[in-house]
Amino acid sequence: MTVADLGERALIERIRERVPPPPDWVRVGIGDDAAVLVPDRNAFDVVTTDALVEGVHFDRGFVPARAIGYRGLAANLSDLAAMGARPRAALLSLALPDRLPIRDFDEILEGLLALASRHDVALVGGNIARSPGPLMVDITALGSAQPRRIMSRRGARPGDAIYVSGEIGSAAAGFEWCHAHADDALKMEMWDPASAGLRPDPLRAAGARFLYPDPRVRLGWVLARNRAATACVDLSDGLADAVHQIAAASGVGAIVDGDAVPVDPAAAGWFKRSGRDPLLAALTGGEDYELLFTTPARRRRLIDAVVRQTGRPRDGDHDANGARAGRGRLSLTRIGVVTRERRVVLRRNGGDESLPQGFTHFR
Amino acid sequence: MTVADLGERALIERIRERVPPPPDWVRVGIGDDAAVLVPDRNAFDVVTTDALVEGVHFDRGFVPARAIGYRGLAANLSDLAAMGARPRAALLSLALPDRLPIRDFDEILEGLLALASRHDVALVGGNIARSPGPLMVDITALGSAQPRRIMSRRGARPGDAIYVSGEIGSAAAGFEWCHAHADDALKMEMWDPASAGLRPDPLRAAGARFLYPDPRVRLGWVLARNRAATACVDLSDGLADAVHQIAAASGVGAIVDGDAVPVDPAAAGWFKRSGRDPLLAALTGGEDYELLFTTPARRRRLIDAVVRQTGRPRDGDHDANGARAGRGRLSLTRIGVVTRERRVVLRRNGGDESLPQGFTHFR
Repeated sequence: MTVADLGERALIERIRERVPPPPDWVRVGIGDDAAVLVPDRNAFDVVTTDALVEGVHFDRGFVPARAIGYRGLAANLSDLAAMGARPRAALLSLALPDRLPIRDFDEILEGLLALASRHDVALVGGNIARSPGPLMVDITALGSAQPRRIMSRRGARPGDAIYVSGEIGSAAAGFEWCHAHADDALKMEMWDPASAGLRPDPLRAAGARFLYPDPRVRLGWVLARNRAATACVDLSDGLADAVHQIAAASGVGAIVDGDAVPVDPAAAGWFKRSGRDPLLAALTGGEDYELLFTTPARRRRLIDAVVRQTGRPRDGDHDANGARAGRGRLSLTRIGVVTRERRVVLRRNGGDESLPQGFTHFR
Repeated sequence: MTVADLGERALIERIRERVPPPPDWVRVGIGDDAAVLVPDRNAFDVVTTDALVEGVHFDRGFVPARAIGYRGLAANLSDLAAMGARPRAALLSLALPDRLPIRDFDEILEGLLALASRHDVALVGGNIARSPGPLMVDITALGSAQPRRIMSRRGARPGDAIYVSGEIGSAAAGFEWCHAHADDALKMEMWDPASAGLRPDPLRAAGARFLYPDPRVRLGWVLARNRAATACVDLSDGLADAVHQIAAASGVGAIVDGDAVPVDPAAAGWFKRSGRDPLLAALTGGEDYELLFTTPARRRRLIDAVVRQTGRPRDGDHDANGARAGRGRLSLTRIGVVTRERRVVLRRNGGDESLPQGFTHFR
């Protein structure tokens, strides 16, 4: 059975049946002309949108349908986290090829709702259209943030330290692992304990991180609450790109210490074996969904508090980070410094080079 | 020059340059991970999303690029109007074929910004991706509404009168006119005085209404302010569909008086000449973007006040409604009654028939 067999109305009904009862601040949810939300008290609204296009952002040959819905929301939650906002609601806009099996439709929704449930996000509306071409999943997420605690890309100042969360390169290596192990990738579950390091294949864990990234929702919120960051951005287009974004928006430069960059060892090994510079591959690989932020010298002591408050994964809560879930707290690594001179430099082996640009569409 | 020649970053910059300075309640606008908005005081947030897909919602053979951006926003403003919300902000998500000329990109944006400016809507963010298939324009709009004045589809009660704004059938007939007069349609301007009835071709005016519909933003807001409606929906999928939607959501039936339905005379003539039942063609033709609402018997006197407050088009403000812009006030026509019995009936020529279903995707 395909989506064309069921039709638009039945598909909307199918979504409505699967969405859990909304919280009471959702006054009108799925099925009307628009959704009505009660704004968070004394908070600002934070809104973002992100689209996944088949053949551009995902290949159905090795990305399971569940991962499409999951990743669509993850990209948005990561954007909200980078602003210091707590996610609240999402709108789902789908453009579906006629022949998409209903089973895939259900799994896209299942992936989205699983991540939504983990972060208390209410699916409140959306749109379903036909696509004469690729499958497209366009998600808008709404969050809220305390007025004086919003983080943007603009606040970095010379002398600030640059930090990154977690490890980078996993998504890029994991993408290649999934491509090479399509059968295994297509069967991968969202919270598969096997992906949490119980199997001795760290590249498979990187594959799980690529398919089911763990957006740094709590870290973003804790950074904002502690006013620990002068600027923050997520790594959707890679670490190198993130540094360029903050530098450009803040009118500053940066020196990134190549030796300090926390590259996923499994990813580094994979890049090396396939003849690439592991650091450059990790710096330019996108979709890690970590956060990069800057902190003034006098607030660096706050970093310990942030790490403490970000906390361990909940008990039994194997996240999609593979082996890292077992290691306890999310790491924050200092990788460089903001400079007055507006160059963006990668320093390693005692020499300086330009930090490469990240991934951009059409290029 | 194509969008691929410029690249994602330059396209975002191009948008940023063309967007007017945002109002002060936009704390972070285009170019960050997300936009930050100060919610309206004592109001609820109202959010909706709508996608236009090339080959499904528009044909570039006879729909100018300006109309694509314009109509994408119009569909969303119409949804907000149906909830009684005032529009505030929009997010624009684009999936662009590599070969899309920059000129078309600029015109899509120009159409969107023209309608946004008319209704004081701030473009605050979005997303640009590549499309390996059709052009897609997915817009999310945010508005605000007074808590007790929100209109939904659910409130219709037996005995309520059913009203519709303006005239219907124009968009369906206008679509066919544009198809048959592609050269003329592709040159049609947004506020072309020629489309406002100054040329003696009413079907051309219907073409203008199809390309540049006038969402009933003020009517929705005035209906809500006066608490004049028990339920409201827009006609994006046609009048017949709108009645079915309200009936299903409210758990009621309806009788639509076929003789009372205000069909655009030019459209009716066109449907008749091409061998169709003018009323059925108008009832099932979508994209008129009028509002349909129900009013209890004791509030019917409010309708006059609503008409008065909805007012004339501003001076020199030739809207895209073609000839109707010259006629002064927007008309509201009583076309039927809500019934306890859950059938949805079209009554005409002394007989009853089932009201047809409207347009749905995949069917």
